[in-house]
Amino acid sequence: MDSHEMMIEVMEYNEETVKTYEVPVDNMEGIKALSNIPEGIVRWINIDSAHTPELIHAIGSAFQIHPLVIENLDNDIQRAKIEAYSGFLHMVLKMIYLTDESLVIEHLNMILGEHYMLTIGNSEGDVFSETRKHILTKGSAVRKGGADYLFYMLFDAVVDGYFAVLERIDDQIDDLEEEIMLETSQEHLFEIRRIKKLLLKLNKHIWPLRDAASMMKHEGFNLISYGVEPYIRDVYNHVIQALDSVETYRELLSGLVDIHLSNSSNRLNEIMRVLTVISTIFIPLTFIAGVYGMNFKYMPELSMPLGYFVTWGVMLVIAAGMLILFKRKGWF
Amino acid sequence: MDSHEMMIEVMEYNEETVKTYEVPVDNMEGIKALSNIPEGIVRWINIDSAHTPELIHAIGSAFQIHPLVIENLDNDIQRAKIEAYSGFLHMVLKMIYLTDESLVIEHLNMILGEHYMLTIGNSEGDVFSETRKHILTKGSAVRKGGADYLFYMLFDAVVDGYFAVLERIDDQIDDLEEEIMLETSQEHLFEIRRIKKLLLKLNKHIWPLRDAASMMKHEGFNLISYGVEPYIRDVYNHVIQALDSVETYRELLSGLVDIHLSNSSNRLNEIMRVLTVISTIFIPLTFIAGVYGMNFKYMPELSMPLGYFVTWGVMLVIAAGMLILFKRKGWF
Amino acid sequence: MDSHEMMIEVMEYNEETVKTYEVPVDNMEGIKALSNIPEGIVRWINIDSAHTPELIHAIGSAFQIHPLVIENLDNDIQRAKIEAYSGFLHMVLKMIYLTDESLVIEHLNMILGEHYMLTIGNSEGDVFSETRKHILTKGSAVRKGGADYLFYMLFDAVVDGYFAVLERIDDQIDDLEEEIMLETSQEHLFEIRRIKKLLLKLNKHIWPLRDAASMMKHEGFNLISYGVEPYIRDVYNHVIQALDSVETYRELLSGLVDIHLSNSSNRLNEIMRVLTVISTIFIPLTFIAGVYGMNFKYMPELSMPLGYFVTWGVMLVIAAGMLILFKRKGWF
Amino acid sequence: MDSHEMMIEVMEYNEETVKTYEVPVDNMEGIKALSNIPEGIVRWINIDSAHTPELIHAIGSAFQIHPLVIENLDNDIQRAKIEAYSGFLHMVLKMIYLTDESLVIEHLNMILGEHYMLTIGNSEGDVFSETRKHILTKGSAVRKGGADYLFYMLFDAVVDGYFAVLERIDDQIDDLEEEIMLETSQEHLFEIRRIKKLLLKLNKHIWPLRDAASMMKHEGFNLISYGVEPYIRDVYNHVIQALDSVETYRELLSGLVDIHLSNSSNRLNEIMRVLTVISTIFIPLTFIAGVYGMNFKYMPELSMPLGYFVTWGVMLVIAAGMLILFKRKGWF
Amino acid sequence: MDSHEMMIEVMEYNEETVKTYEVPVDNMEGIKALSNIPEGIVRWINIDSAHTPELIHAIGSAFQIHPLVIENLDNDIQRAKIEAYSGFLHMVLKMIYLTDESLVIEHLNMILGEHYMLTIGNSEGDVFSETRKHILTKGSAVRKGGADYLFYMLFDAVVDGYFAVLERIDDQIDDLEEEIMLETSQEHLFEIRRIKKLLLKLNKHIWPLRDAASMMKHEGFNLISYGVEPYIRDVYNHVIQALDSVETYRELLSGLVDIHLSNSSNRLNEIMRVLTVISTIFIPLTFIAGVYGMNFKYMPELSMPLGYFVTWGVMLVIAAGMLILFKRKGWF
Repeated sequence: MDSHEMMIEVMEYNEETVKTYEVPVDNMEGIKALSNIPEGIVRWINIDSAHTPELIHAIGSAFQIHPLVIENLDNDIQRAKIEAYSGFLHMVLKMIYLTDESLVIEHLNMILGEHYMLTIGNSEGDVFSETRKHILTKGSAVRKGGADYLFYMLFDAVVDGYFAVLERIDDQIDDLEEEIMLETSQEHLFEIRRIKKLLLKLNKHIWPLRDAASMMKHEGFNLISYGVEPYIRDVYNHVIQALDSVETYRELLSGLVDIHLSNSSNRLNEIMRVLTVISTIFIPLTFIAGVYGMNFKYMPELSMPLGYFVTWGVMLVIAAGMLILFKRKGWF
Repeated sequence: MDSHEMMIEVMEYNEETVKTYEVPVDNMEGIKALSNIPEGIVRWINIDSAHTPELIHAIGSAFQIHPLVIENLDNDIQRAKIEAYSGFLHMVLKMIYLTDESLVIEHLNMILGEHYMLTIGNSEGDVFSETRKHILTKGSAVRKGGADYLFYMLFDAVVDGYFAVLERIDDQIDDLEEEIMLETSQEHLFEIRRIKKLLLKLNKHIWPLRDAASMMKHEGFNLISYGVEPYIRDVYNHVIQALDSVETYRELLSGLVDIHLSNSSNRLNEIMRVLTVISTIFIPLTFIAGVYGMNFKYMPELSMPLGYFVTWGVMLVIAAGMLILFKRKGWF
Repeated sequence: MDSHEMMIEVMEYNEETVKTYEVPVDNMEGIKALSNIPEGIVRWINIDSAHTPELIHAIGSAFQIHPLVIENLDNDIQRAKIEAYSGFLHMVLKMIYLTDESLVIEHLNMILGEHYMLTIGNSEGDVFSETRKHILTKGSAVRKGGADYLFYMLFDAVVDGYFAVLERIDDQIDDLEEEIMLETSQEHLFEIRRIKKLLLKLNKHIWPLRDAASMMKHEGFNLISYGVEPYIRDVYNHVIQALDSVETYRELLSGLVDIHLSNSSNRLNEIMRVLTVISTIFIPLTFIAGVYGMNFKYMPELSMPLGYFVTWGVMLVIAAGMLILFKRKGWF
Repeated sequence: MDSHEMMIEVMEYNEETVKTYEVPVDNMEGIKALSNIPEGIVRWINIDSAHTPELIHAIGSAFQIHPLVIENLDNDIQRAKIEAYSGFLHMVLKMIYLTDESLVIEHLNMILGEHYMLTIGNSEGDVFSETRKHILTKGSAVRKGGADYLFYMLFDAVVDGYFAVLERIDDQIDDLEEEIMLETSQEHLFEIRRIKKLLLKLNKHIWPLRDAASMMKHEGFNLISYGVEPYIRDVYNHVIQALDSVETYRELLSGLVDIHLSNSSNRLNEIMRVLTVISTIFIPLTFIAGVYGMNFKYMPELSMPLGYFVTWGVMLVIAAGMLILFKRKGWF
Repeated sequence: MDSHEMMIEVMEYNEETVKTYEVPVDNMEGIKALSNIPEGIVRWINIDSAHTPELIHAIGSAFQIHPLVIENLDNDIQRAKIEAYSGFLHMVLKMIYLTDESLVIEHLNMILGEHYMLTIGNSEGDVFSETRKHILTKGSAVRKGGADYLFYMLFDAVVDGYFAVLERIDDQIDDLEEEIMLETSQEHLFEIRRIKKLLLKLNKHIWPLRDAASMMKHEGFNLISYGVEPYIRDVYNHVIQALDSVETYRELLSGLVDIHLSNSSNRLNEIMRVLTVISTIFIPLTFIAGVYGMNFKYMPELSMPLGYFVTWGVMLVIAAGMLILFKRKGWF
């Protein structure tokens, strides 16, 4: 196990100072001390995939987290939500990003106390590098704000990540649309399905956030100060926008299914048109040839000197007539 | 009738002690005594499929249950719901599990009083073995809580059972999807329908739970203490999650119908392509052969020394031309 | 006109006594007297299809019914609803039952006053025979209750009737499903349409009841006593359940359309497969036969001693090759 | 311009008296005097298509109508709505009727003041002849009521007009259904589209009325007295019913599209079945004939005395076999 | 850079006077002075695409705009919305117009203060020329009103712009419908998709306005005076109407897809009908000709004097029979 994984990352700051340090995950005394926050300081404690049940319980009892929250911290099939408890807010979020082939979803717990922010993820990476930079920059808004402003910045960073995913999907739909307009292939339907599944997953994880953000917007939890509320409303608007996009992409995809099916049926029409044109021209001619291939003893035409040429003439007239008819019907 | 069926199962406990015993279903005095609960004790009375109308009425009058509730206890087509009466809460739930072929649904009545919990099912089995273990474990949360915490545990156990069912369905949809992508068969449509019916049933039984749980979450019945409310909210979130999954699976299934239909139409295209290629190549050639099979007395080509070979040449040129044309159209 | 049609049916009861009698529809004095109800008595006045405008107005003025209600009593295209007026509740309901071929819908007006219940239908029959039995049974709940309990019983009887209809529809859908899986017929589509129309009608008549029942549940009209409210909630749950079933059946039906269409397209595939297999085997062979049926003077193969047999050999090889190819494609 | 178009129609009444007269549209003094209403009188001023901007402004300033309302009176693309202003209610409605081919929609403004009713339309005709008769009838409800009751009557007359339209559409759908079941024609699809467009328009114009009527029902504007409220609720119910019907008709139409498509695909199946049966029977037989039409010098069968008859026999056996096979498959 | 781009456009007015001038974007002192508004004056400051971050911050600090609003002014992927801050309202809107091929969407920020109106766009053009004319006209409503009335006029001008776009789309759908009814082409499907995408975009941008307008309508922000509220409700009604139209157009388009698919399938039917009629007539005849082309030594018919003519007769009878059959089936 590398050292990074064994450490809890701590940033603490106020307008003047900022301090970054790490606490080993097995230093129970150090962990306990984290809940003891000096006056006027905001402390952000970030725990990544290294957390053990012991660590979780130590943190939980140090910060007086409700047992139900502690129990669920490791449960990554939890739905996104926000719940108010006495003394803290518990938010569950999904960090989402797209690799070459599939959607990666990481579970994130955010606990906002009066002077601290706890983030507990289930993987090593996160989307908070920009936030860290802001904290380290003297005079930035986050340095002037409280833990609730930090909460907003982290929440916003996660939601911004969704838009990167949505843009990738947008590109993929555009590419697919161009291909579908050019040629018909069963592969396209599988691609439509793959993207549709992506969108279903995105929707599943972003949708509950809408309720959560709406709750924050309307109920105004007392841990979120009046000054931070407009920021939360802003994140709420982003969440709605992400959901709008998901909905739009789903409509675009279902339109592509129509085009695919119509292409396929057009293709069948074309094939049948070729068969019909060729068959209906040659079948009557072959019949005529068959007639004069009969071996009846008495067939007057056979002995006519021009019989053969007249037959050819009749055949050509029939063929030409058919061609004109099909031309008029627009069949070729 | 075996002895199990003739007994009412009783567990009573507080933080220090726990006692498990059975009361025969025909011991009316014993049943009446059950409503007489010592101070500080939580009593859980579990009645399974063995209940008779007499037993139900004895229990009902002992615990002063509303006549409407008593009347409906045996009515297993009741919808899931929660209703508050003076002195008790009545919840109707469905326990759901999946056997090899079909969905088994068991009807369950839960009655929560101030110091007791009544569970009345319509079958021998239940999903409460874990709960029983927790009650028997000294120091567990349930032993420290009241009847409302026991209510939560039982409710949670039922809802957890839904996820097992949903996982099975998830696997079945994945399997089906793979098969559908490989080959086209009318069987697939029947399988889609079978799963869709499962999902309709699941939805039918879980959906009303959403209203019930939402009511509990928002109205805060006075029998559910403030400390237990976060747990109820948690179960509510699970119910919502189960419904989300049902919805997602339904969308996935309807996408599979599209793929099935498109496969079927692709197959028709392929069949017609073969017919068209073979027919349009050979029909003109057969016509030419027919022409020189005519018996006209005067057909100059017939007596040409190379007539036969020239005819073959023309035929080959026509066939090759057709093949090149079809190749260009991507028909084979 | 038979005597039954000329009579108003009256039942009046309290816990101890019950009395049943009839009042001729043209006895205006008797009708006026009906509104004069002795202390402690509940009076149920049931008027069936025989009502004339005069009768309606006499009843209306006797019971001080609002003119709008009186005006609409005969208007059977009214939507189901409940409206509170000062001194009485007016409910409009549809009694629904299924005959062999179609859905019969009967319009019913229910007017609940403090001590009376007025029911005015537009046909001779009704679904209240069970209710009459209960009233005649000493000690039954209805005898102990007030007019509001009678209102509940009548409302419940009507709603219970819906489930009988829904069960019949369930059976019909099951039968249809089995038939559709066995064979394809345009008749099935007409049958689907017939059942869908039934469901549309059912929905149309039950849906407004949902609003009405919900209003009763939430607003608690003052004519419905606190003790009767749980019963009304129970009927409300039944209404919701009926609507759930209608919705489920509609989804099942629309799935059947998919199966029907897929069957039809499968059938076309099968037909085309047969045509293609037969055609693509024999068309090349016929061409070969045609070639050696040509009358060119110089065709070396014709004079070869084994020419004929070699030709047969070639033909068999081609046919076998084609068959193997089609077998591999799974075309037969 | 005929005299009718140059006149404003005025009816004024109370329980005892009624007076009908006309005011020329250019008599500005007379128009101004209209707002001066004697005690205890209800005055209905009806202006049809003849209104000029001057007239509108004269009326507006006489009755102290809000400038926004005056400005919009001529704007017939306004949505149906009701708005409360101080001193008057402004309702926008659409009168709808169906001619042979299309839906006619007329824009109507209704302004309800304490003692007057202003109706301003954009055409000569209206649906108020019944209302006029009621006003002229001594003892009718409208004569006893205030301006709000007149408002109800006019509103009700407009909504009743919708049902006449819906009935016509119902007939047209029934006719179309019968035709579609009998034969397949592209015309049917155009007819479905025509009716669907009608329904879209109806929905567009009736839907906003639902909000308006619901607002009246729930908010109880103070210009509408307590006694008139049940009547308004009644109109609200009619509006809901009209919308229900529109919804039902749309579902019926979309079911007809399914039947049309299925018919068309059935027809293709039938065509292909004929082609396949004929082709697969004769193609092998033609091949056999072709074989014995070959000119090989040594073909033993040709010299057999019964060769020809045996060949016929073989052909008949093959044809019969095919027929039996197709019969079994149910292809004819 | 031309002079226009370097200027901030300012209009200030009251009932008596109006003044129009420009402030260079780099005149920081002048910009600061803008927030200093004389008693009784309404000032409209319009900034177009020329704005730099410095300008934005100067304006922001002069008018004490919330930092979040300043930060987002340039962010043109913001959703339409209205937000109340202490001292000002912030509205985000999209100006939409249609060029030959695509929808142009311009982002617009509107900030309403007590005595000023700030509009900040991201392009040179706008839709406010009518509004400017009104301001310059003495005695116009806007000159009598406050900044809130100006806010209404600008908002209304933007929403009116949507209807021009919708009318164009309406025309395009009508044209497309006519074409689709005349002939089948894959191009139509692409055109349907193009318009559908337009509508999706329109919906995306208008929909949030509905929430915004509804909020204004219901909450009554204190910066919008009682007298202006009816005007805001009017704009709200226009927004709803625009959304209704979008919805209607989407339904019309999806109906066009049905017609396109049905046309395509009709066309296939027609093609197959021709193939089937020609094939089934000539295939049996060709078989007969084949039979008498066989070279059996003993074929009695061949030596019959009338054999050839009888054969022709049989062939004609068969052909006529087939034609009659197909005629009856309505196949040509």
